[in-house]
Parts: sequence; C-alpha cells; structure tokens
Amino acid sequence: MDFDAFFQDSLARLKSEGNYRVFADIERRKGAFPCATRHHEDGESEVTVWCSNDYLGMGQHPVVLEAMHEALERCGAGAGGTRNISGTNHYHVLLERELADLHGKEAALLFTSGYVSNWATLGTLASRIPGCIVLSDALNHASMIEGIRHSRAQKHVFAHNDPADLDRRLSQLDPDAPKLVAFESVYSMDGDIAPIAEICDVAERHGAMTYLDEVHGVGLYGPRGGGIAEREGLMDRITVIEGTLGKAYGVMGGYIAGSAAMCDFVRSFSSGFIFTTALPPAVAAGACAAVRYLKTSQMERERQRRNVRLVRARLAGIGIPTLDNPSHIVPVMVGDPVKCKRISDWLMATHGIYVQPINYPTVPKGTERLRITPSPVHSDGDIDRLIAALSEIWSECALHRNYNVA
Amino acid sequence: MDFDAFFQDSLARLKSEGNYRVFADIERRKGAFPCATRHHEDGESEVTVWCSNDYLGMGQHPVVLEAMHEALERCGAGAGGTRNISGTNHYHVLLERELADLHGKEAALLFTSGYVSNWATLGTLASRIPGCIVLSDALNHASMIEGIRHSRAQKHVFAHNDPADLDRRLSQLDPDAPKLVAFESVYSMDGDIAPIAEICDVAERHGAMTYLDEVHGVGLYGPRGGGIAEREGLMDRITVIEGTLGKAYGVMGGYIAGSAAMCDFVRSFSSGFIFTTALPPAVAAGACAAVRYLKTSQMERERQRRNVRLVRARLAGIGIPTLDNPSHIVPVMVGDPVKCKRISDWLMATHGIYVQPINYPTVPKGTERLRITPSPVHSDGDIDRLIAALSEIWSECALHRNYNVA
Ligand SMILES: Cc1ncc(COP(=O)(O)O)c(C=O)c1O
Ligand SMILES: Cc1ncc(COP(=O)(O)O)c(C=O)c1O
Repeated sequence: MDFDAFFQDSLARLKSEGNYRVFADIERRKGAFPCATRHHEDGESEVTVWCSNDYLGMGQHPVVLEAMHEALERCGAGAGGTRNISGTNHYHVLLERELADLHGKEAALLFTSGYVSNWATLGTLASRIPGCIVLSDALNHASMIEGIRHSRAQKHVFAHNDPADLDRRLSQLDPDAPKLVAFESVYSMDGDIAPIAEICDVAERHGAMTYLDEVHGVGLYGPRGGGIAEREGLMDRITVIEGTLGKAYGVMGGYIAGSAAMCDFVRSFSSGFIFTTALPPAVAAGACAAVRYLKTSQMERERQRRNVRLVRARLAGIGIPTLDNPSHIVPVMVGDPVKCKRISDWLMATHGIYVQPINYPTVPKGTERLRITPSPVHSDGDIDRLIAALSEIWSECALHRNYNVA
Repeated sequence: MDFDAFFQDSLARLKSEGNYRVFADIERRKGAFPCATRHHEDGESEVTVWCSNDYLGMGQHPVVLEAMHEALERCGAGAGGTRNISGTNHYHVLLERELADLHGKEAALLFTSGYVSNWATLGTLASRIPGCIVLSDALNHASMIEGIRHSRAQKHVFAHNDPADLDRRLSQLDPDAPKLVAFESVYSMDGDIAPIAEICDVAERHGAMTYLDEVHGVGLYGPRGGGIAEREGLMDRITVIEGTLGKAYGVMGGYIAGSAAMCDFVRSFSSGFIFTTALPPAVAAGACAAVRYLKTSQMERERQRRNVRLVRARLAGIGIPTLDNPSHIVPVMVGDPVKCKRISDWLMATHGIYVQPINYPTVPKGTERLRITPSPVHSDGDIDRLIAALSEIWSECALHRNYNVA
C-alpha cells in the first residue's frame, strides 16, 4: 500500500468539501490582548483576535505571569518526571488543593489537559466499575466520547439537555447496574447551558453517578468562578466535576474534583494520568494564581458580560443571525463551510479581524459558524470595528439578515 | 451502588499488595539540580533526586529558561485556544520546523504530551487506514497500547525486540493488507535498545509502515540528539518518529515527525490533536531552545555517559545487581514491591536520596526495581553518597549481591 498516496487522497477530499483547516500563525502580544501579530507568507500583520478561549484575558494578567516567572526561577522548566517518578512538584499539590476548595470537594486531581482529564477519567471509571453503564449527552465533547469509547462500557446517548429522555433511558436499565451520567454545563459551540438540577434529580432517582464537564464554565460563572454548578448551588450533587486550566484560567492543564476516594482511585488506575510527564511547575503555578485570583475578583467576569451583551445587541441591531443562548459564546451562523471560510479570510485580510471559521468535525455539517468570544480585553473600538466589518461583508455577500432576533 | 465504597475497596487491595503509590512532594531547585526540597507532614528536607527523566538537566539550562521567560513576556501564559481556533502560536510553528529538521523529515506535528502523541497518532492511523493491521512490540509503552486499543484495528503482539518473530507474524498476514509496526528505541524500564535496522528490514520486506517511539532516545543519542535512529543512520527508514519534549529536553510536550502528508493527515483527523488547547507559547519556546541547543552541544551527553558508566562500575564493584543494558538507564533489581518501597523510604529518610520504587503496573509484578538515572548534574560526591547508602541498606537487609555481573 502506498501510504502517502492514501494520506494525500484523504486530504484532497477534505479540501474539496471545504473542510481542510488552515491554522492562522499568530503571536499574541502580552499587555496588548486582543492584539496579535500574524505571520504569513508575505510577512507580518496586526490582528484583533475575536475567537480566543482565553475568555477573561488571564493569559496576560500580572498575577499569572509573575507566578510563572517565579516558579521558573525556583524550580526550572519541566517537572522532570511522571507524577509518581519524581514529577510531583509542590505547585501541583498546591493547585490540587486550590481546585478542591474551588468546587467544595475533598480532593482534586490534575491532568496534562482538559482533554486528557475527560478521556482518562471516563475511560477509567467506566471500564473499572464492573458493569458500569454510561449515559452520555448527545452533544458531549470529543474527549468525553473518546473516553467512554475507550472504556468499552455499555453506552446510551440521551437527547441533548433532555432530563426526560435521560429518565426514560435510565428506567429501561437494570436498576442494580452501576450508572454514570456524563454531560457538560456550557456547550461550547452553541453556548447553551444544561439543566443541571433536573439532570441531578433524574440521576439521583436512579442511583447514578454524575460527571459534569465545566470546561467552559470554570472561572466564568459562580461567585468564586466554580462554574455553572457553583452559580446554581449544585456542586455537592455532582460526583465528578471536570475543568480546564487552559481557557478562562489562561494557562494549560485539566483536572477533576470529587471525593478523596474517587480522585485516589483515578490517580491509582488511570493510564492517562500515570504514564505521562507532569505539568511544568510554572504552568501549575500560573494556573494556581489564576484560580485563586478569580475566586475573589469579579471585575473580569463583569466586564466580559457587559461586552457579550453589547456585541449581541449590536449584531441584533444590524440583523446578523446569532444563536440565542444564555452564555458568553456568540455563534454567528453561516451554515456553509466554504462561505464561512471565505468570510473569515476576508475579515482577516481586509480588517485584521481574526475569527476562525468553525466547521466539521467541530460542529455538524450545515451549521458552520463564526464563533465570537467577547472578552474584557476588547475595547468599544474593537467592537465597533467588528460590527462594521461584519455588516459590510453581510451586505457584500447578500447574506441572510434577521431583524426579528432580539 | 455505593461508588465510594467500591473505590475504597480497590485502593485497600492495592495497599495490601504493596502497590499503592505515594507521591513524593518535591520542589526541584533551579541551579542546584539534582537537589530538591521535599515537603512532608513534618516540614521540609533536602533531597538528591536520582530518578528524574530530565536526563540532561536541561530543565535548569539558561538557554531554556531565558527562552521561556522571553516568550512569557512576549505572548503571555497560555496559547488561548486549540491549534485551529486561535491557538497556533508562532513558537509552535518554529518548534515543528526544528523537530522536522532534527529527524530529517518533511514535517513534524506537536501534541500536548508524548502520551497524547502516541495515543492520538496510533489511534488515528490504525483506525483510518482501511483494514490496517498493527504489529506491536510486547513491551510497548502504555500510551502506544492505548492508542492501538482505541483504534480497534487488528493487533498482533510480537516478541520483544525480536525481528524473527515479527517476520513470522507478518508472513501469516494477507500480503495486501496495510500494516504498521510499532516499537520503541530505548525501553525505559529495562534500558534495552531495539534492533531498529533489522526491524526495518523485516517491515520493508512486508511493505509495512514503521512507527518508532524515541521518547527515551531523543536529545540523548545521535550527534544532533535525533535519537538511536539518528545514531544508527536509520531515520529515513522510519515512517513515523515519535518523541517527547518532557524528558531529555526538560520541558513538556510530544510530537511526531514524518512525511508532510502523514503529519497533515494526523493534524486533520486526530481527535487528540484537534480538540485540546495548544501548548503554552513559553513551553514551546523552551522546548525549541533545548532541541536547538542539543543539536550542537555534546557536553551534556558526554558527561551523562561518563556518570552512567561510573555508577554502573561502582554498583558492580559492590555486587549490587543491575540489569545490564547499553543505555543510560540503571535498573537496580529488587523483585518485590514491599521491599522496594522500604528501601526507597529508607534512602529518603536516612540519606535524603530520592529513588522512586518502580512497581506494577509500570513493570511486571516480581520485577520491582529502583530505576536510577545518572545525569550530568550529579557530582562525584553525589555518586559516592548513593553507592555508600545502597551498600549500607543491602547489608542491613541482607539483600542478594552478585559479584559476577560486570
Ligand atoms: C467541552 C470541552 N471539554 C474539554 C475540552 C478539552 O480541554 P483542554 O483544552 O484543556 O484540553 C474542551 C476544549 O478544548 C471542551 O470544549
Ligand atoms: C516510551 C514512552 N513513550 C511515551 C511516554 C509519554 O511521554 P510524555 O511523558 O511526554 O507524555 C513515556 C513516558 O512518559 C514513555 O516512557
């Protein structure tokens, strides 16, 4: 078999469908977020980033950067080993305590990323709990799906954010079988939010564990940044809360929080936790500073909300269709991969505005979109320029406007 | 089901077997490697780390730290997104070029860790190449095994480092089926090295792709640190070379190198690459500096080899049984998890010497060991103290000595 020919054919197919991805090569500019320098074939140019998941701009916050510089000077670059073999650094221990406290849980456990925390934890729990059956929301993130798939446990997909469907499916299962309900709080592509209380009601009625991905909630919601479950006073009803340190906290890494026994179990049995170099001390230190800071500071969250409201209102004012939702994510719907990419390219080339087109497999085909994430570091001028540019391209391409969307 | 009771039972079983892991909470001291501060219940103490995989001490090298400080100041803490959605930073691009050059390949692709690079690449190739059959070395790392398992491709395990067995197994398969041979160069727990040329001969004869994990080879072997395959002039015969940035390069991250089409294919189809926040720019910058530096500097590798030779000779001199091998890894064999942990605890408590006991599932039961990794940052005094302490505990516990091992 000619392997390279096979790879090339597959890529050609992606290209012809308009689903081939070209990464923008950018350099964020600390102190000047959302500005970044874009590197391209003809040189460099300046762009305003409108699609970052550093939702609060914590990646340039002095408390985070100071903590990272200091840890670098104190402990050096890497952890130097897996957690078990010389790689547990004191910053990991402090961060795990900070995260347990954030979620009001006995313990927390760090992973190299949110992806790995989902994959490894779900893979371990669902495979090691004998006869475990997983109930998985239809729109769960790839990392959860892959973890469940990896476990080879029996899986039932319930309708997205639908506690009644979950209840029906649970009712059909052996009442004595151990069950795990896996879902997210904020769904990142549509920005809708799960009915956590209702899902917990159903899960509890059936004696199921609950596993909640708060990747797009932590840092952003709740008085201390504990996520949607904190805001709604539900953290104690969730068995496993999972989060990331790479989005609102601005650095990198993932974690779970829950009972001491659950965390110790995953720590002891999970391949994806055990057999990998631990996070660099400086990364743990930076994340720890961000988590601690956002436990008290409300300023970033308030300013973000204000900018989200403003962007939504301005888009509605010019009739640009967005998906309505109660979160910080503003999806501008295009519904075609080629058009979506063309708009994105034009925004970048003509206005230095960077909004990555979101296409398959991140969203279903036919729902291609521009996913806009207003943050506290965007100025009113940035917003004006974004709205003017979108209005221009919408007119130029005679794209659908919808003046009825509020 | 009482989930916490189940977790506690499982942990109790681990404890009774002597396989429960207790992580040492340490703080490496930049500029003073291999010294670290150990945090414990009663306070702090100083330890000499003898089990780090920061094999060359690059984690405290000024070129690495300067690059990281600079990138932090330039770009901030995190990447701010997945590679596709605003998270590709110019440092990633530069690092991928540096790694492609290191291995003489057209392209390279970064992952958040070596674990993820193995899992994601093998999972993607073996599941997406129609009918792909994987031939896997019996002692492959967990991350490779999990990737292959994830792909659900047909898998055949060949005897460890045995090209004749590989040949036999390949001969029994459909000659037209696409095949992938996955193996490592340096096996990290025994320190033995694969017969790469012979494995390539066999693979080529059967038209199979080759996938080589050089995690414990890169930075350490070959005139430019390209690994065992570089040292032996075999890089061009390997389809996919995989490596880590978290061991000899002292930081964190993983990668593959190979043809442009192969890397682009994995980039485009691999869930574990696509759906996760990219490495922080400072991590990429630090790793890039380490890779570049070790392309020319031989000093660290030479000093490491000298210390490995010295430690081996001194251990042989006092009859402490080590597994003989041609690499930088010195496994002192104990063969019992409880004894192994007791020796390790005693070394730590009495001499401030930190060598983590290696037990199941990292090594097979009955082959528990102390895995010693001499590095250029260990002084002759450090070596004297290690040898004296091991000699003392060997006498005290009347452990087996073997004066015949050279
Ligand atoms: C819902 C969800 N869970 C998990 C992840 C993975 O987290 P991380 O980026 O830290 O790997 C992501 C995005 O990357 C996500 O959107
Ligand atoms: C052979 C081998 N491959 C891959 C890995 C994973 O690399 P990383 O630590 O970068 O995740 C390890 C160890 O951690 C390993 O020993």
